[in-house]
Amino acid sequence: MTVQVDAKRLVGELRVLAGFTEGGGKDEHRGHGGSTEESTEGGVAVTRVVFGEADRRAREYVEGLALEAGMTARWDAVGNTFLRWEGSEPGLAAVGTGSHIDAIPNAGMYDGTVGVLGGIAAVRALKEAGFQPKRAIEVVLFTSEEPTRFGIGCLGSRMMAGALTAEAAAKLVDEDGVGLDAARGEGGFEGELAGVRMEKGAYAGFVELHIEQGPVLEQAGEKIGVVTAIAAPASLRILVEGEGGHAGAMLMPVRRDALVAAAELIQAVERAALVTGVVDTVATVGMCEVFPGAVNSVPSRVRLSLDVRDTDEARRDGVLREIAAACAEVAARRGVKVRTEMINADAPCGCGAEVVAAVEAACAAEGIVGRKMVSRAYHDSLFMAQICPMGMVFIPCRGGVSHRPDEFSSEEDIGLGVAVLARALAELSYSL
Amino acid sequence: MTVQVDAKRLVGELRVLAGFTEGGGKDEHRGHGGSTEESTEGGVAVTRVVFGEADRRAREYVEGLALEAGMTARWDAVGNTFLRWEGSEPGLAAVGTGSHIDAIPNAGMYDGTVGVLGGIAAVRALKEAGFQPKRAIEVVLFTSEEPTRFGIGCLGSRMMAGALTAEAAAKLVDEDGVGLDAARGEGGFEGELAGVRMEKGAYAGFVELHIEQGPVLEQAGEKIGVVTAIAAPASLRILVEGEGGHAGAMLMPVRRDALVAAAELIQAVERAALVTGVVDTVATVGMCEVFPGAVNSVPSRVRLSLDVRDTDEARRDGVLREIAAACAEVAARRGVKVRTEMINADAPCGCGAEVVAAVEAACAAEGIVGRKMVSRAYHDSLFMAQICPMGMVFIPCRGGVSHRPDEFSSEEDIGLGVAVLARALAELSYSL
Repeated sequence: MTVQVDAKRLVGELRVLAGFTEGGGKDEHRGHGGSTEESTEGGVAVTRVVFGEADRRAREYVEGLALEAGMTARWDAVGNTFLRWEGSEPGLAAVGTGSHIDAIPNAGMYDGTVGVLGGIAAVRALKEAGFQPKRAIEVVLFTSEEPTRFGIGCLGSRMMAGALTAEAAAKLVDEDGVGLDAARGEGGFEGELAGVRMEKGAYAGFVELHIEQGPVLEQAGEKIGVVTAIAAPASLRILVEGEGGHAGAMLMPVRRDALVAAAELIQAVERAALVTGVVDTVATVGMCEVFPGAVNSVPSRVRLSLDVRDTDEARRDGVLREIAAACAEVAARRGVKVRTEMINADAPCGCGAEVVAAVEAACAAEGIVGRKMVSRAYHDSLFMAQICPMGMVFIPCRGGVSHRPDEFSSEEDIGLGVAVLARALAELSYSL
Repeated sequence: MTVQVDAKRLVGELRVLAGFTEGGGKDEHRGHGGSTEESTEGGVAVTRVVFGEADRRAREYVEGLALEAGMTARWDAVGNTFLRWEGSEPGLAAVGTGSHIDAIPNAGMYDGTVGVLGGIAAVRALKEAGFQPKRAIEVVLFTSEEPTRFGIGCLGSRMMAGALTAEAAAKLVDEDGVGLDAARGEGGFEGELAGVRMEKGAYAGFVELHIEQGPVLEQAGEKIGVVTAIAAPASLRILVEGEGGHAGAMLMPVRRDALVAAAELIQAVERAALVTGVVDTVATVGMCEVFPGAVNSVPSRVRLSLDVRDTDEARRDGVLREIAAACAEVAARRGVKVRTEMINADAPCGCGAEVVAAVEAACAAEGIVGRKMVSRAYHDSLFMAQICPMGMVFIPCRGGVSHRPDEFSSEEDIGLGVAVLARALAELSYSL
């Protein structure tokens, strides 16, 4: 079978999708002489928060492409959308692929989207090659892989796997106090949240195409990464509470400044990751909110949002303990209250041998050897692994850059990734 | 002359004024088990940003009280409002008093407002005592003493003194991109900004009543502070620019995390104030804005807003140099760009001997000895000093607390402060 991917068309579709963004695609980094200025390709700033106007319009566009490709569309109560190419044996569990289309503030145009539009492109290529699947092939658009709105990543796949219960999901509230129920209603999704959960075996297998979001493939000069495991992510909040006051009149010796205490913790988080001495450990404070937040007011409260990951769960938990110890020490020394709130601490997981083998065979059919590697970023596949054997196909992205407007993968690399995905799906449709 | 201040009425007016707030007076600290919970008195959270709806309604209320007291009202192009009790010799320069009514987010109800409503109460008390001023007495409501909206404190008095030119003022823009011209238009103020500037001598003298915003009077058990000088404030921004990326995939060794660098600078600012070894030095990072601000994104840019003050200008400038040195060191070591932007660095200033003498005489007439002291907070009087001799009357505030909902001064202390203010104004109306 010869698989011909129309990569030019696919990149055009990715560009159209990038146009569905909040704030009109203005790159906020750019106005400040940011490091993205050298970027000449890519460079589109995308912000797409789940259930917002841009997300709704983007979903309509994606569904339109699937219908045009002769697929059917259905969705669940939380907005996970299933774009199906029926197989010759409709009673069998489908083979799944897909990813997400939501984007953090000021992100790039490839993260997630390559897996969704690439999934549809793979179906088109297989159809043109005259292929007929045995098991149906379903492209899944997962709701809210990014934690932007509700503070928890992989919302849709997490609920599908039952790792987040319908009861717990119903209590989620965004920063403006809008609950998940109201938000999904605005997005046009209703029905019982309990119905989102899937049985183990609901899919026969799952394989996700994604940009690497790291520098490994580019540095090695390799074109395809065959993911063997996904690192274990944890995210938490640290709330520091000191005492506010007038910045001129409150003297230094009596201060319990929440921001200076938080600054120590930000450094402690970096230190906790560095002392493992292992490159696989990463820890990031991505948000720092200061109250009351006035130049002439001593900060009374600070909220930090953290992300800690490792390919090794025990080592990651060691980092979390280091951070907890630093919180206790700073609290005691500075006379502030420090409270930590664990948002999620997921286990890492290995990919299914049969899926990894199918991806490797697909690489061989395209005349290349895929590089086996670990995914440091988490993905919806982490939760799909609780339903069925899963695997991932990585393609290089320039400089390992992601979550930025200058995120970029070449048309050639995207095309090859889709060809590998298509071949893997075709094989799994019969072999599983 | 016997001066009888109706302090109960005045506190009632202060409470009404506190009702004009954004967000309905909700105390954001309270929901988080904040240190304000023990507060049983005061405890009203006030947010009043210049030219906003709450500010507009508060201004109307204050003007109404002045008209009711038989005063006239006029205002200039930036909204400084002049409430006048005409003297027997209308051609003479007036004696001024007054303060501000704008409030930082989640502030208390006494900062500034005691000087404005207290000024009107002083006029009422003098009228009831049968006093007739020679020079007019004017209560000034200064626009935007707080830097909340346009990033620069004492906007109105700064322009009156010519320390901020009309051209520079016209370029001010708030966080939402609204310029001063549009903002003052919404506030109902128009006309040439150049007309705000006053000649030296436009007032014969100025005396401002204010809560101390520090603990000195309370700790000493004294009732009135006679201010002899105002400390030198400086405010600046530090912009840190690193490199963003995916929090999972961007490895620690290659990171140039803007927030970790900023955290070092936050600590350097504290250290720079502490190493002077003098209690009069204070330095505060009141704001820390992180971009893009997502839990799973390495911060690419951080903006810190700082406030540095000292009673000694040279020592304060030494602190600023220490901070600049730390910026250079951190930038070089962490491979980030650090840029500092000085918003204002004002000189400290001494009070006029004749005004200080009048306040001391007023204290004596009330049977007390005022405590001579330096103001660590800055006030509109700092700029009025460029127009005429100025002085300030301080009253105690509980725990030295200010810029918080639990800011509190007692009815008795407020009443005594207004009596001293009234007597000082009466004397200055004839002696200057």
